[in-house]
Amino acid sequence: MKKEARAEILTIGTELLMGQTIDTNSVYIGEALAAAGIEVNWKSTVGDNETRIREALRTALARSEIVIATGGLGPTEDDLTCRAIAAELRRTLHLDQTVLDSIRRRFAKRALVMPRNNERQAMIPEGATVLPNPHGTAPGLAIRLGDEKMVMVMPGVPSEMRAMLKEQVIPRLREAFDVKLRIRSRTLKACGITESALDEMIGDLIRHSRNPMIGLLAYPGEIHIRLTVKTESETEGDRLLDDLEARIRERLGELFFGRDAERLEEVVGRLLLETKQTVAVAESCTGGLLCHRLTNLPGSSAYFIRGEVVYSNYAKERLLGVPRELIEAHGAVSRPVALAMAAGMRRTAETDLALGITGIAGPGGGAATKPVGLTYIAIASHDSVTCREYRFPGDRETNKLLASQEALDVLRRYLLSHRHAGPA
Amino acid sequence: MKKEARAEILTIGTELLMGQTIDTNSVYIGEALAAAGIEVNWKSTVGDNETRIREALRTALARSEIVIATGGLGPTEDDLTCRAIAAELRRTLHLDQTVLDSIRRRFAKRALVMPRNNERQAMIPEGATVLPNPHGTAPGLAIRLGDEKMVMVMPGVPSEMRAMLKEQVIPRLREAFDVKLRIRSRTLKACGITESALDEMIGDLIRHSRNPMIGLLAYPGEIHIRLTVKTESETEGDRLLDDLEARIRERLGELFFGRDAERLEEVVGRLLLETKQTVAVAESCTGGLLCHRLTNLPGSSAYFIRGEVVYSNYAKERLLGVPRELIEAHGAVSRPVALAMAAGMRRTAETDLALGITGIAGPGGGAATKPVGLTYIAIASHDSVTCREYRFPGDRETNKLLASQEALDVLRRYLLSHRHAGPA
Repeated sequence: MKKEARAEILTIGTELLMGQTIDTNSVYIGEALAAAGIEVNWKSTVGDNETRIREALRTALARSEIVIATGGLGPTEDDLTCRAIAAELRRTLHLDQTVLDSIRRRFAKRALVMPRNNERQAMIPEGATVLPNPHGTAPGLAIRLGDEKMVMVMPGVPSEMRAMLKEQVIPRLREAFDVKLRIRSRTLKACGITESALDEMIGDLIRHSRNPMIGLLAYPGEIHIRLTVKTESETEGDRLLDDLEARIRERLGELFFGRDAERLEEVVGRLLLETKQTVAVAESCTGGLLCHRLTNLPGSSAYFIRGEVVYSNYAKERLLGVPRELIEAHGAVSRPVALAMAAGMRRTAETDLALGITGIAGPGGGAATKPVGLTYIAIASHDSVTCREYRFPGDRETNKLLASQEALDVLRRYLLSHRHAGPA
Repeated sequence: MKKEARAEILTIGTELLMGQTIDTNSVYIGEALAAAGIEVNWKSTVGDNETRIREALRTALARSEIVIATGGLGPTEDDLTCRAIAAELRRTLHLDQTVLDSIRRRFAKRALVMPRNNERQAMIPEGATVLPNPHGTAPGLAIRLGDEKMVMVMPGVPSEMRAMLKEQVIPRLREAFDVKLRIRSRTLKACGITESALDEMIGDLIRHSRNPMIGLLAYPGEIHIRLTVKTESETEGDRLLDDLEARIRERLGELFFGRDAERLEEVVGRLLLETKQTVAVAESCTGGLLCHRLTNLPGSSAYFIRGEVVYSNYAKERLLGVPRELIEAHGAVSRPVALAMAAGMRRTAETDLALGITGIAGPGGGAATKPVGLTYIAIASHDSVTCREYRFPGDRETNKLLASQEALDVLRRYLLSHRHAGPA
């Protein structure tokens, strides 16, 4: 059955209707199908109700060639997907001995006896192909309807669904249908700029580029520029993405920091490794978040040496050697104190670089001259100590995030501009 | 039109089909409608395509009394919702002068001239009631279809949608339809236990309680027990929830730590405030995450004094006074070192309590005798220093999260058991 195919995603589960669970499965499926060149035109969700599951399948089959259903394959009475699909497609259910044996083996391996309930998961509609589930007890199903349509059923547990989708469902769909266009996406990430300022820099490209299309998505402290291209060949798609990426990066310069899943802390970590420099952190208002982000990366112990989360003035004085008179004269949240924190940290930790952060995360602690969100970020190196002032507009947790983001960016820009200078 | 009403949520936007955006709007709407006693039976998503928006509306109106649509109300050519809905309902669009004036005023306030595009947002279907949008330019719409059905249209920007839903859409729906049952939910949170062990403790309640219903959801390091009740009166619902909560908490004892949005760090913070105790943290494998979580709370400077993120043995020795011989004899990841870190931190920070954490977050650094995930968490107080060993099964970031979770729980249980003893 080689024909053009459009897909509908059908997610099943009452918890998805009542706001208890965010449906991340359909997001993952949508992205994977798009990447495989299969367009998703519809998404629908129903609760654990046999009549409505049947109705949803009927509606989906009337308008889509491919229906991808997830959820409701568990062993309990609430799990009605298989029964509803069999009934709607007028197929009888039979006990599949191979499936039953494999479920039994899963329990045996953990030295458990299979509860009787799990037998339900081995009831398979007539004519369906079983998709083995190496990560759980519920098998998936592939059901062909004549030469035109296909229903794929997968478990709702994300890790089980994801493996089955990539390894079994998508290859079968690409084989069965005439999939010409491949949709590829790439995300370019920028920081240190607002969405509207970025729009001014690349707005003409956004409005005139049709393939790839360009979309902007704003996140706290960073903006994602999403390029999406549709082409028959992957090579051609990559070439178009490369060309557009080059044009955008030329305009952005150092505002660009990474691609796709790459995080700011990864880029910073790589630059530290590359330049063989070490860093220490003295943080006040960010409360440990900057250290946390710097240490999220495997191997970060090569460059991250030490962090101090100093909430009290006493700790700032004693641990970092910030002079008491400085704090008394300018206040703990001030440029001179941030500079002294960075310099003191670098000296005591004996690192190449050190960051000092002091600010008012809020909601309390603000004043007319020093409002909530006021933050100073300083960086000390072998030959300089510099500091910038920020005013973050968020609540406590957003301000912590924004300050950690800017601190990483300060470090990134320092490392970029001193890339060829090497360590002190 | 007083009759029972079931709702369908229709979200509009191609980005929702291609895995670029997670549809959190429908989750929010589902929860808010459930709380208001309006059952959501269907959810569907279509792209920015006039034919398919019309088809989706037709399908929805055939099976639901209430259709709540969001998205596609912006000023650009991709925004087709209003036109599609008007066409499907055979209503002409007319320019609404009041809406246009209010959009103009929004621009004027920011000293901007309204782009011509935004005029599109003032085109309103005949007979629709405009729902003013105080947070953006796109107005919402309420359209009655005879005495039976209602279509509500809201912008897709979450903050605009949320305000409109609560303040305008739900009150109108509750007025128009015969809404009897209220659905209320409550989440009880437990930590320090696995899902299956919890199921053994309260499995009989889960299986036999019908109203409230009980569901379990597992998250890293904690399990949520969700109670959902349907009643005509809120008081009756609360009473049923209170009764069941009491029964569950009696069985859980100290495993229970909080309700609903309450986080473990909040509970710990409250206990510290209540008992007037201070805390300091020496963390290695968690890399700052524990300090970050403890300082996420407004007012945490009252109890959180200082944190050290010590990656090197040298820092452990010099800052915390952990004897070099101890590290040499047992290794940095060992019970004696965790104990010495906690005790050293408490001594140098001069706090009532201190935590010491050392472990192997992975993916590197593991060995046969000390595998990735091995972690020691110690707590020091005025009269004792104790330590527990953990073996976390996750990747680096999960292990950091699990270790921070267990450390908070160690602190929580210490504070609970010494609640009436007061500070040292």
